[in-house]
Amino acid sequence: MRVIVQKFGGTSVDGAERIKNVARRVVDAKRAGYSVCVVVSAPGDMTDKLVDMAYEITDSPPPREMDMLLSTGERISIALLSMAVQKLGEQATSFTGSQAGIITDSSHTKARIVEIKADRVLDALKRGCIAIVAGFQGVSTEKDVTTLGRGGSDTTAVALAARLGAEFCEIYTDVEGVFTTDPRIVPEARKLPYVSYEEMLEMAATGARVLNARSVEFARVYRVPVHVRSSFVPDEGTWVKEVSEMEQPVITAVTYDKSEAKVTIRKVPDRPGIAAKVFGTIAEENINIDMIIQNISEDGSTDISFTVSKDEVARAREVTEQIARELGAKGVEVDPGIAKVSLIGAGMRTHPGVAAKMFDALARKGINIEMITTSPIKISCVIREEKTEEAVRAVHDAFELDKDQAYEEKEI
Amino acid sequence: MRVIVQKFGGTSVDGAERIKNVARRVVDAKRAGYSVCVVVSAPGDMTDKLVDMAYEITDSPPPREMDMLLSTGERISIALLSMAVQKLGEQATSFTGSQAGIITDSSHTKARIVEIKADRVLDALKRGCIAIVAGFQGVSTEKDVTTLGRGGSDTTAVALAARLGAEFCEIYTDVEGVFTTDPRIVPEARKLPYVSYEEMLEMAATGARVLNARSVEFARVYRVPVHVRSSFVPDEGTWVKEVSEMEQPVITAVTYDKSEAKVTIRKVPDRPGIAAKVFGTIAEENINIDMIIQNISEDGSTDISFTVSKDEVARAREVTEQIARELGAKGVEVDPGIAKVSLIGAGMRTHPGVAAKMFDALARKGINIEMITTSPIKISCVIREEKTEEAVRAVHDAFELDKDQAYEEKEI
Repeated sequence: MRVIVQKFGGTSVDGAERIKNVARRVVDAKRAGYSVCVVVSAPGDMTDKLVDMAYEITDSPPPREMDMLLSTGERISIALLSMAVQKLGEQATSFTGSQAGIITDSSHTKARIVEIKADRVLDALKRGCIAIVAGFQGVSTEKDVTTLGRGGSDTTAVALAARLGAEFCEIYTDVEGVFTTDPRIVPEARKLPYVSYEEMLEMAATGARVLNARSVEFARVYRVPVHVRSSFVPDEGTWVKEVSEMEQPVITAVTYDKSEAKVTIRKVPDRPGIAAKVFGTIAEENINIDMIIQNISEDGSTDISFTVSKDEVARAREVTEQIARELGAKGVEVDPGIAKVSLIGAGMRTHPGVAAKMFDALARKGINIEMITTSPIKISCVIREEKTEEAVRAVHDAFELDKDQAYEEKEI
Repeated sequence: MRVIVQKFGGTSVDGAERIKNVARRVVDAKRAGYSVCVVVSAPGDMTDKLVDMAYEITDSPPPREMDMLLSTGERISIALLSMAVQKLGEQATSFTGSQAGIITDSSHTKARIVEIKADRVLDALKRGCIAIVAGFQGVSTEKDVTTLGRGGSDTTAVALAARLGAEFCEIYTDVEGVFTTDPRIVPEARKLPYVSYEEMLEMAATGARVLNARSVEFARVYRVPVHVRSSFVPDEGTWVKEVSEMEQPVITAVTYDKSEAKVTIRKVPDRPGIAAKVFGTIAEENINIDMIIQNISEDGSTDISFTVSKDEVARAREVTEQIARELGAKGVEVDPGIAKVSLIGAGMRTHPGVAAKMFDALARKGINIEMITTSPIKISCVIREEKTEEAVRAVHDAFELDKDQAYEEKEI
């Protein structure tokens, strides 16, 4: 049995005509000799509408009930797609997350898959039936409906592909693949034929919206080749896969993220254990922080800055002001007007000049860098939000990302 | 633990404001000392919209997928209502049909409840939590999602009331109770303070839409008192309950049904076994027929007429034409222009003059009776559809149903 998993996003199943198109793709794959498992998202903006409905009822919807609510959209998609596939003459069976055996922990609205009991899906595939699974949802070990967070359908698809031993997992979406940067900002941005799991992870973590980070993690751990491609055009998209060192370009992509804000605690007394106190307390509140900077101490006090999702900045401010008072700091400033621009490339490990070249490209445009973080394959700079587009263009140009980089080791 | 079950229909949960109103009713009952189990339908016309979506995909939606699709509406209602109840400070937990342990057979789109495994609901009630259950749906013994057919939420509510040993079951709806006839036709129609299970069953079967027949059957078998009342006004509605003979009025109500068509097979050779052949074949096709009439034989042949739901009349015609050819009958006629007017009353058993009085009332208005069927507590007459309103008024007047009939034995 040669299994593949195909995942279709919300825009692909928005309306009868699009659902029929998806059905044709699925049936084509089946008739090409594959056993096909399909994962679908909720149609169009249904999930957003459901969220709005909840907030009309209460300003703090209980997470368990939120999951009960949000899991309905995908069920509509799977039922309708199953009907459309059967109409084309193939057998199909829809499965809710629970029926597909997607077992998660109990962290409602952001549950993690702990196990997949795929018996029913496997039975269906063995019978020659196309299995159509609701993405984004599962059932907790307490038998409650859970959801995996935004973009969770990607995770469902990749996790199922791993569990079913699929040859590959196709992610159909409204873009044509993974690009060297956002083509709306840089029209010469190039579609990447492939990208390594590690790079894709960094890209997802720094603002590329094409795949969610957790799905890439799954793909990496289980070595599932993922093909990101368009629902609307037949061309090959981008393969996320294991990439040999020889195939590895130095630099792969430039990403950006405007979703964070910067919080600064002014003039914290510079004593040992201060950072632990600050970030320990924030972590206890379950607030995720991204970058951290502590200035050089002056007169026995220092400034500590960190970035946090704008969604959580109100809570972060509250907690931080409390800590600032306790520590006798001067005060807390919140700056929502920032953006993070990142450069990703596995080849960076062996090319020490990359960071300097990036900083230089920004400096030439007069763009000030407020914070910097690095990983072995990524450099991120925080800049003013209104400079984002200019910065992305400058960095993309400096590394000539519009030109094919694979198989040639460029001097930097 | 004093348990009650409250059921709210689709119009009661259509929009945030109405859901908040329902939440207040539920919380009031809880604070009055009851353990409250709530059953809700899909909001507004959502189920109709989902049906339309299915028919945009295919003209014959597979029943299993139809159930997957149609079961989503109630899930939205239970999640939102649970949020609204929690917002008012009471604990609440939503349960899908499956989570509430509503086990059904596998007859998709019209499944029957075979068992209720109410452990999770009972646990919730024991913890002081309000249990909010999706109506209309269950899970089959094959672990597929099933639905109970239109009006199925009533059945869920009454069945749960029986299983939980509830003191009574409240059905909140958009009318104020059960009336002696449709007040849109007869403005003097009287709201009945109570009605017996048997009479309510006959009323449901002959066109009264306030409760579905299967839910009344459940109530009767398990002796669950059912209180039918308005979601929008606080007045007492109608109790469907065991009624002692002393409390029993002779005549309770006049109902009508325009949803059937009449099929006639002309000049069937009149041999033994003909009726068995005709209705056996129709039954095999799973077509439900209501009334049957076979004319007196003439020249060795006879006419056979029956009524069938307009939804099924196309299939019934097909089957019947086939049989007519096999039997050498002259042909098949289909007449959609009929209506059935029925008179219901448990006291009828001991008052033989009732039928004659009904026929006389129709005759005085020049309304021709085309078919008649009777049960011990019901007389139904098929007439021309356009005479329905006039017939209902005539019969309602003749039996003075606008006047209170209980506790007094009227001469007829």
